[in-house]
Amino acid sequence: MKILVTGAAGMIGRKFCETLAERRNIGSRPVDRLMMADTIKPAAPAGAPFEVIALSADISDPGVAESFVADRPDIIYHLAAVVSGEAEADFDKGYRVNLSGTQHLFEAVRQAGHRPRIVFASSIAVFGTPFPETIPEDFALTPLTSYGTQKAIGEFLLADLSRRGFFDGIGIRFPTICVRPGKPNKAASGFFSSIIREPLQGKPAVLPVTEDVRHWFASPRAAVNFLFHAGALELDQLGSRRILNMPGLSATVGEMIASLAKVAGVECVKLIQREPDPNIQRIVDGWARRLDASRAQALGFRAETSFEEIIKAHIEDERSIGKPKG
Amino acid sequence: MKILVTGAAGMIGRKFCETLAERRNIGSRPVDRLMMADTIKPAAPAGAPFEVIALSADISDPGVAESFVADRPDIIYHLAAVVSGEAEADFDKGYRVNLSGTQHLFEAVRQAGHRPRIVFASSIAVFGTPFPETIPEDFALTPLTSYGTQKAIGEFLLADLSRRGFFDGIGIRFPTICVRPGKPNKAASGFFSSIIREPLQGKPAVLPVTEDVRHWFASPRAAVNFLFHAGALELDQLGSRRILNMPGLSATVGEMIASLAKVAGVECVKLIQREPDPNIQRIVDGWARRLDASRAQALGFRAETSFEEIIKAHIEDERSIGKPKG
Repeated sequence: MKILVTGAAGMIGRKFCETLAERRNIGSRPVDRLMMADTIKPAAPAGAPFEVIALSADISDPGVAESFVADRPDIIYHLAAVVSGEAEADFDKGYRVNLSGTQHLFEAVRQAGHRPRIVFASSIAVFGTPFPETIPEDFALTPLTSYGTQKAIGEFLLADLSRRGFFDGIGIRFPTICVRPGKPNKAASGFFSSIIREPLQGKPAVLPVTEDVRHWFASPRAAVNFLFHAGALELDQLGSRRILNMPGLSATVGEMIASLAKVAGVECVKLIQREPDPNIQRIVDGWARRLDASRAQALGFRAETSFEEIIKAHIEDERSIGKPKG
Repeated sequence: MKILVTGAAGMIGRKFCETLAERRNIGSRPVDRLMMADTIKPAAPAGAPFEVIALSADISDPGVAESFVADRPDIIYHLAAVVSGEAEADFDKGYRVNLSGTQHLFEAVRQAGHRPRIVFASSIAVFGTPFPETIPEDFALTPLTSYGTQKAIGEFLLADLSRRGFFDGIGIRFPTICVRPGKPNKAASGFFSSIIREPLQGKPAVLPVTEDVRHWFASPRAAVNFLFHAGALELDQLGSRRILNMPGLSATVGEMIASLAKVAGVECVKLIQREPDPNIQRIVDGWARRLDASRAQALGFRAETSFEEIIKAHIEDERSIGKPKG
């Protein structure tokens, strides 16, 4: 089986490809070839037991999407996207990559005519306030960012082109992924990961919001498992509704901190510095707190059920934590 | 004030322009110039008290949208669309006109930089089964046709570009418009109009579905009034939710026929011939039966409250009924 991953240099794309090199299969079907594509050339996973092709190209450039699907991949994981903050700051780039890029890919697949599986990475950013405390499965999409708008449109295109039979699409709405490995960043959501990741490394972290902030999380490990499961799932079960809220864990910042204390001790938690930022508080107050993900759960998608699990997954998966580099 | 109407040769576009020629104003603001655009050259309304420019051009062709907005219209009524049946039969044409055409128009407005009002004609086709008996205001869009998908995407683009401040957009979801003047057509929804229109002219009409079929209607007159109201409304009231379910009348086919008997007599009703068509029954069974339109109602949008009103509006507005042509 041939696999294409767009956005393969991103955190989830990279982890998915590394895990694929270990597992070798999606469902019961072995992988023969993996094409990893991104604007930056992705690093091929070490010791992959199948052919790996790493490409650097922009999916919104003419002819690129066609070249990606020229060898007729059986499953396309479309993860490539300009992130939320950048899509908001750069209107043209966001629409070019996140909307036109997706349109180009879907059109290239339609023209290729081989009807692959497409797994489309969507996001809880398709929801914006006002919404109920738990967002129902049938709730209207009300994005309040251009990124959320572009993801919502991608969902609709995926559903219609699947209905038409041009490909077999499934869209999965990722929770906020936490704990993200790597360095602190300036994204409004960055503190959710840094208040766990930095103290675990003995470093201070800034908490800009109140402890009663509640949000919807899954670990990078759960996100990778969503992708495997979406690639193997029998999609006839979905009927006309091909987009699924992924399961997640609804937790407050206070619960996150209490979990960190349990896993790593109270001294660790003292590294979290409270520096309220009204701007970040306002942005985060508009984010989803909990989603009904019962359809996805019934189809076998699984996420963590406690924040301690999320922290332990991070510690296990990022074994270099606290170790000097190199 | 300068007005642009795309799709001005369509039934609603034509009636809107004719009414505009009578009323001369939108809200309290007088109209100086009306540009009517369509793929077929629209007929200018007789005796318009303002300049009328009628253009034949395809909004999805390069440069056309730019030419439409070159004189910086204050209000743009974007009604142009390939209808549902055609968008389903011709994938490329539907996406080209209904999606790319809308994208071109919005982009041309963004580039022009003058921030006009845009009134976007959407449709209850954004909803598809399964849904509750009354579709709530916050219900997920679940289109089951390419037309409904294209309208849904137009709604999302309108909302995001309005939020960005490129224009001041409002989207209105029309009920099924009934009674449509003109000749019977082969659209699955055609019988809703023909079972009223044809008997009123002493002609037979075919009813292909059962009398318990319930659907959501407004008259052409109500539709025109929606457009006037949407052009004049203060949009700050909408917040981030710029798309409104238009009010309508939920009626069964049996209620429609009973109303026709009251307005035109029982002999008239005998002209309706029952010829069940399982295909049409199946399609129509998937359509919305009733929508919560309380947001639009609170903002002053009004539709008919009985089917007799709809029939009487048809008789008044189509005065040539039963008279020989010419």
